[in-house]
Amino acid sequence: MPDKVNFADKFAQIREHWSPKIVGELNGQQVKLAKFQGEFVWHAHEEEDELFLVVDGSFEMQFRDRSVTLRKGEFLIVPRGVEHRPVAEHEVSVLLFEPAGTLNTGNAGGERTVVNPDRL
Amino acid sequence: MPDKVNFADKFAQIREHWSPKIVGELNGQQVKLAKFQGEFVWHAHEEEDELFLVVDGSFEMQFRDRSVTLRKGEFLIVPRGVEHRPVAEHEVSVLLFEPAGTLNTGNAGGERTVVNPDRL
Repeated sequence: MPDKVNFADKFAQIREHWSPKIVGELNGQQVKLAKFQGEFVWHAHEEEDELFLVVDGSFEMQFRDRSVTLRKGEFLIVPRGVEHRPVAEHEVSVLLFEPAGTLNTGNAGGERTVVNPDRL
Repeated sequence: MPDKVNFADKFAQIREHWSPKIVGELNGQQVKLAKFQGEFVWHAHEEEDELFLVVDGSFEMQFRDRSVTLRKGEFLIVPRGVEHRPVAEHEVSVLLFEPAGTLNTGNAGGERTVVNPDRL
């Protein structure tokens, strides 16, 4: 039986940007927490839909044809196959919900890929 | 491409207690929002793990051998097969994350079962 997870406690342990940490697993899915700041890489996930929920702050989710500003208390589901790029002017705390094993950089790969995320 | 979901907007539309509303779907899972107040029924889900995240307020998740108080900014994953009962002294706003089709009353059934939750 997992313990409860407190966002403030977990985010206080996260110092890197763009490096999601696993904080829960259920039904083959994972709950991850991450801090974003700056621009990430354009990518898509071929097989995975991905949920982004803002816990604190705000950021912009860019798509090829538009962008969506996400603020605290809002979430967005990015369907599989859709290219996206998160951009955060200021540091933002985000909850991710996605299938276990989803890579942060999706089909783009590269040096910012986190292959085995830490668990907090 | 789904629109973003704002918690305040959605919770303002929820008037009943214990009646989860579907606000998102991904990877065969559903995101639901619900307001709890009072005592629910003891139940378990045979095949589904269930995540409870408190968006506003607090409640107690009772298990047969202990209970966990969940406050705003905290979540708990209840594994499949584990009997549980949410109890809220005051109204609380909760996000649920669980497989599509999960029944609110699990294996208990009864008059509080919501068979086809509304979508908001």
